Amino acid sequence: MQNLPGFRDFPPEDCARRNYILNTWRSVARRYGFVEYDGPTLESVELYAKKNESGAEIMQQLYSFEDRGGRPVALRPEMTPTLARMVASREKQYKKPIKWFSSSTFFRYERQQKGRLREFIQLNCDLIGETGPAADAEVLALAIDLVRAFGFGPEDFVVRLSDRKAWMDFLTARGVPEAQFGTVLQAADKIERESPDSLNAKLAPAGLTVDDLKAFIASGSPESFRPLIEELTARGLAGYVEVDLSIVRGLAYYTGVVFEVFDRSKSMRALAGGGRYDDLIAGLSDGAANLSAMGFGMGDVVLANFVSETPKAAERMAAALAADAPVDIYVIIADATRRAEGLQTVQALRDAGWKADFSLAGAKVGKQFQTAEGLGAKFAVVVGGEWPEVKVKTLATRQEVQVPQSGLADWLKSGENSL
Amino acid sequence: MQNLPGFRDFPPEDCARRNYILNTWRSVARRYGFVEYDGPTLESVELYAKKNESGAEIMQQLYSFEDRGGRPVALRPEMTPTLARMVASREKQYKKPIKWFSSSTFFRYERQQKGRLREFIQLNCDLIGETGPAADAEVLALAIDLVRAFGFGPEDFVVRLSDRKAWMDFLTARGVPEAQFGTVLQAADKIERESPDSLNAKLAPAGLTVDDLKAFIASGSPESFRPLIEELTARGLAGYVEVDLSIVRGLAYYTGVVFEVFDRSKSMRALAGGGRYDDLIAGLSDGAANLSAMGFGMGDVVLANFVSETPKAAERMAAALAADAPVDIYVIIADATRRAEGLQTVQALRDAGWKADFSLAGAKVGKQFQTAEGLGAKFAVVVGGEWPEVKVKTLATRQEVQVPQSGLADWLKSGENSL
Repeated sequence: MQNLPGFRDFPPEDCARRNYILNTWRSVARRYGFVEYDGPTLESVELYAKKNESGAEIMQQLYSFEDRGGRPVALRPEMTPTLARMVASREKQYKKPIKWFSSSTFFRYERQQKGRLREFIQLNCDLIGETGPAADAEVLALAIDLVRAFGFGPEDFVVRLSDRKAWMDFLTARGVPEAQFGTVLQAADKIERESPDSLNAKLAPAGLTVDDLKAFIASGSPESFRPLIEELTARGLAGYVEVDLSIVRGLAYYTGVVFEVFDRSKSMRALAGGGRYDDLIAGLSDGAANLSAMGFGMGDVVLANFVSETPKAAERMAAALAADAPVDIYVIIADATRRAEGLQTVQALRDAGWKADFSLAGAKVGKQFQTAEGLGAKFAVVVGGEWPEVKVKTLATRQEVQVPQSGLADWLKSGENSL
Repeated sequence: MQNLPGFRDFPPEDCARRNYILNTWRSVARRYGFVEYDGPTLESVELYAKKNESGAEIMQQLYSFEDRGGRPVALRPEMTPTLARMVASREKQYKKPIKWFSSSTFFRYERQQKGRLREFIQLNCDLIGETGPAADAEVLALAIDLVRAFGFGPEDFVVRLSDRKAWMDFLTARGVPEAQFGTVLQAADKIERESPDSLNAKLAPAGLTVDDLKAFIASGSPESFRPLIEELTARGLAGYVEVDLSIVRGLAYYTGVVFEVFDRSKSMRALAGGGRYDDLIAGLSDGAANLSAMGFGMGDVVLANFVSETPKAAERMAAALAADAPVDIYVIIADATRRAEGLQTVQALRDAGWKADFSLAGAKVGKQFQTAEGLGAKFAVVVGGEWPEVKVKTLATRQEVQVPQSGLADWLKSGENSL
């Protein structure tokens, strides 16, 4: 029996790496005052159909089916529609701005390739109910700090910053009919990947050429983003941002700043992407809630590759994982007649919050010490003839002391502090 | 737009309660030396068909469909088949016993009722590669401590303990053909819910009556579980266990101890259930791995009801949630010309690990203080004319001190310790 292609097993060593990413994300988002939410894994297909055009890639990749009650349902491919539904139905009970994050599992039937799986985890962060460069900067700063937290600096990654509004203004000034905007933006999105001839053919109905787009993209400068850049400069984060109008984002609903986060060498897919979508919540809620919003998603697959392929980040992760061994204290029952006292000691340590383990089968003492070392325990506590005292051995230094079992938890606490 | 029936939205206040349960589970399982694993949300239908008979309830409730590649797939309704697959393919790289836990999302198309949803979270804990009462006791103790950790004591819940082997011995001694075992166990499972006449009709082919089953159930005593009870007594946990042979568990694959955890008033469904299944991994892996195992599942829905309906447990949860406010420190920019310094201060606090927030829009100072209180911040840091010093106000006591911004993180750390 195999798992399905594009779906992952997480045995403990992989699960620890996954949790390192999730815990780091959660910790950074919370430092920004974002609070966690989540939604269902399964939603009605209609929720996604409403936001996306039927030809949209995301609808082609949907895991959709009829449930046993005949409802057309889908495994969630993205968080925004769920978020919009939740916010629209409850927004009156929350002070603005609403700062919410989630880290959930998503599903897309994609061709498998590096950085793309069919089930993946994505962090979603959204700031709702506030517009302007200060709000945009808060979200961008969070995206930057989420990557910084893994040990990356401005030499490693960059936020490429663009603005949908600048694109709209350009297209309007050039007399492009609004019906053509989508086609032009999609062509702009592919400007580095598709041939000029093919793109020019697509741009012809809009009266534009690839050279027109390139000229517009070249016109982008930090000057046009001055208030936003000033906010980031004050935070010491401006060095992570570059204006790049070639970033347009595929989706139709963005209304302002859009951005993508890339490794500097651009050898990978985007680490994160998002932007401002001031009309979407109103649209998805049939006008029930008219709330401006800016947010982004950051996937676990590309980030995990980036961490493991960058030595300083990989070492940082390895150190964090090593510091969190499965066991703190291994209780060694040196004398089978003291088994009850051994169990009592294990229970007392666990009740005190320690990760404690012991040999269920009652292995030989030497073997028990080996297991203690193998599990990465800091201390071995030997229960034997000295009862009601026990021997505590610090495994790294081989130092041994004898303490009353009743005082063990306190002794270990002080011992841990001195490590 | 609504979520599907039986599926939950988790707005922040609900997500915090969910996380309280998940974090408590994770913390207790880790104290027992269990390490976390996870598997895919979607699996091939075959994985479940292999373990369960086609008429089994779990197969009737399966969310199954064909994916875009024509594969029959299913949203996971249980963890054991995934666990067995993962362990069987990797067991040689792990020392025994393998102690693994996971907390994942599961899906069953059930009629909605209290304690039952269509998407739920379940903690699964399994100890693999070790038999005997010591291993059984370790798993039972974990189940007990997982419930104790929410503030429940022996007056609140009980583990009802039974043994499939005792049932098999009884049926064999009574000359019941093995083909009838399943029918008898299913009748025993319903002895409190179905009429004696109906049950007697089902038991007739096996040559048994309801009275025979009741006599056998009444014969169960702690004596027959002595080695297991001794292990629990040494841990101080025997008071949580009662022998009750009426517990049989629906599933066919159990081979030894089985148990269910109930609230004492029995007003709710089981909080957890499980048992020993020494042949299942070999069966699911076509003999590739022959590993004994014992484990259980604990769902989040019944437990959450139990916590919220038991005042002492609900208060404990409320205190834990209140201690984890969305914001530690609110930075008040008292003078718009000091915005850059305010942003710099916010960034420094977040970099130091504090949950820090501020007014994006630059609200009036009084309003900023109100927001600080509303978010539950411990401190307000006022950035204004005193720069490069800032005022720090402890919001609970209204005490105010002025400190250099460069020493702020240290001052707050000492302040927090003294709270």
